[in-house]
Amino acid sequence: MRVGILGGGQLARMLALAGHPLGLHVTVLDPGEAPCAAAVAGHIQADYEDMAALERLAAASDVVTYEFEQVPEAAVAALADRVAVHPRSEALGTGRDRLHEKSLFRELGIPTAGFAAVDSEADLESAVAEVGLPAVLKTRTMGYDGKGQEVLEGEGNVPGAWERLGRVPLILEAMVAFDREVSLVGVRGSDGDCRFYPVAENVHRDGILRESFPRPGDPAQVAAEANARTLLERLDYVGVIALEMFQAGDRLLANEMAPRVHNSGHWTIEGAETSQFANHMRGVCGLPLGTTEAVGGSAMINLIGELPPTNAVLAAPGAHLHLYDKGPRRGRKLGHITVRADDAERLRERIQGLSAALG
Amino acid sequence: MRVGILGGGQLARMLALAGHPLGLHVTVLDPGEAPCAAAVAGHIQADYEDMAALERLAAASDVVTYEFEQVPEAAVAALADRVAVHPRSEALGTGRDRLHEKSLFRELGIPTAGFAAVDSEADLESAVAEVGLPAVLKTRTMGYDGKGQEVLEGEGNVPGAWERLGRVPLILEAMVAFDREVSLVGVRGSDGDCRFYPVAENVHRDGILRESFPRPGDPAQVAAEANARTLLERLDYVGVIALEMFQAGDRLLANEMAPRVHNSGHWTIEGAETSQFANHMRGVCGLPLGTTEAVGGSAMINLIGELPPTNAVLAAPGAHLHLYDKGPRRGRKLGHITVRADDAERLRERIQGLSAALG
Repeated sequence: MRVGILGGGQLARMLALAGHPLGLHVTVLDPGEAPCAAAVAGHIQADYEDMAALERLAAASDVVTYEFEQVPEAAVAALADRVAVHPRSEALGTGRDRLHEKSLFRELGIPTAGFAAVDSEADLESAVAEVGLPAVLKTRTMGYDGKGQEVLEGEGNVPGAWERLGRVPLILEAMVAFDREVSLVGVRGSDGDCRFYPVAENVHRDGILRESFPRPGDPAQVAAEANARTLLERLDYVGVIALEMFQAGDRLLANEMAPRVHNSGHWTIEGAETSQFANHMRGVCGLPLGTTEAVGGSAMINLIGELPPTNAVLAAPGAHLHLYDKGPRRGRKLGHITVRADDAERLRERIQGLSAALG
Repeated sequence: MRVGILGGGQLARMLALAGHPLGLHVTVLDPGEAPCAAAVAGHIQADYEDMAALERLAAASDVVTYEFEQVPEAAVAALADRVAVHPRSEALGTGRDRLHEKSLFRELGIPTAGFAAVDSEADLESAVAEVGLPAVLKTRTMGYDGKGQEVLEGEGNVPGAWERLGRVPLILEAMVAFDREVSLVGVRGSDGDCRFYPVAENVHRDGILRESFPRPGDPAQVAAEANARTLLERLDYVGVIALEMFQAGDRLLANEMAPRVHNSGHWTIEGAETSQFANHMRGVCGLPLGTTEAVGGSAMINLIGELPPTNAVLAAPGAHLHLYDKGPRRGRKLGHITVRADDAERLRERIQGLSAALG
């Protein structure tokens, strides 16, 4: 089968790497000259709005998927006229817009922090009254890795915030004093089969994911799966989805969903029987899904901005280096490391060994 | 780093797939129009004797390696003048020629079955007298997957055998009544670090490997490692080597070596912490080697000639499908399946499940 992917970054690269053993042929559409997925896939260099290029992608593909949710709606619509697109455009539209996302969670009974739409300066006042402070004011679309948002600690931060975020549609979300951030990566096949990886505990700094620790057998698993399953079924979803949640006490609050493979699931390449990338490809191609069980214990560390001494990483027992073949740049995801071991104690030792190696 | 590979078949394909996460750029040289590695690597389409093409490969590479040992000596010599070549040409020359191989084993005190060189019809008589019957008469070079050999059960098979095998340099090898065939895949880094995977028990039919079962903790491990280590050190070897052995009672007899990644090590992709492909790339690039420990239990099944119903394979728990993107042809290796599980009992269940699925 032939799979088209909108976007040619590291997620597309890892999807393509997982696709080859399945006999899949991948073409990415990406405006860059040499996006990192192009080393392992065909590449159509074009803007996402380029209708002729989208037609070429459709002609080269039996199914099209994407590696980011900010894909223009018109592009997906144009593709969907010509070829199967998974996940479907409703999921994409939901994942693209924080208000749609949160509203869907609310509609489905998936608990969230309080939120309110902000479409004007006046709205902001009433939203603050409704949601309370502290709260986070976020652009509804195009935000990622902590971009496009501002924390409103108190009333003093409210004036000018509408202005500072660019007078665009916003959402105000109550700030949650959470104990931890967790995410659940799940996958749904075209036959409705749903499978879930163990929840991962995530550590963000400066709004960017730094580390993920899968927690097989975590008490949050059952509730997290129930939330994700509701979402997958409601959206008649096909492929991998990620649901990010805050845990506060025993409350699990859905924060956002990503209608695609997700950074907090990178550990699945070595740490699970079937990786999220292989399962996304299986799902969108209508193939049976693979086993999502953890294989021992693992931990994922993002490499951001610059690379550590890679030889030290490679020498660390059980460490798996994944480079994305991208040049260094502040805040840029250049790669990740997964450390794996058969049991928790050995994993701890290996993480310590790696930390020492990273200096 | 840039890695050139002579040959663009499935071994080069899996080497390239393992190289990308390490940030390596791979170019294969292969006479085919679309060899299966070309989907994941650069491709220079040329004969192995094409000096201009070899120069292009050398210019595109920091190190060159190969996926088969029948590479013309002149090609390796031409490359070695321009760029690092690993494993070194002595290892390649040894692996290419059964007589050199067996003679080296003997020189190093690695036990083998009896053998003798046969360079003429007259030689065959004396070789039979020396080695005894039954024995296997093999071409010294170019044999693989059971090709280029003839079993001499008794004196009646001797006349004409020299003729039938093409009047080329041969080796007569005593036929071993073995209990099992095992292989050891090992790897040596440029710093001399040697690591070994668990021995695998191999099942051949019609001279072609069908199944490999890694046996962590096998009693043969120590002797097999000692043999392989001697060989790696004597050849100042860099990269992955495979040593195939017969076990007869408690005797372990070296049968042949492959100076490359090997079919009996394909299980390492999921079944070991670091795959043979990743470790070969690490080795030839002068990078630290990865952990070679098994990850639970696994078994590898070759897909030969035609593919089974792939959906049934994908649906089998713990089954990992690896397709080489090659068309069906009698006796051709089209892919393999690795089944993995955390423990022996579950592995047995999963193998049974897969067998049922394969029908």
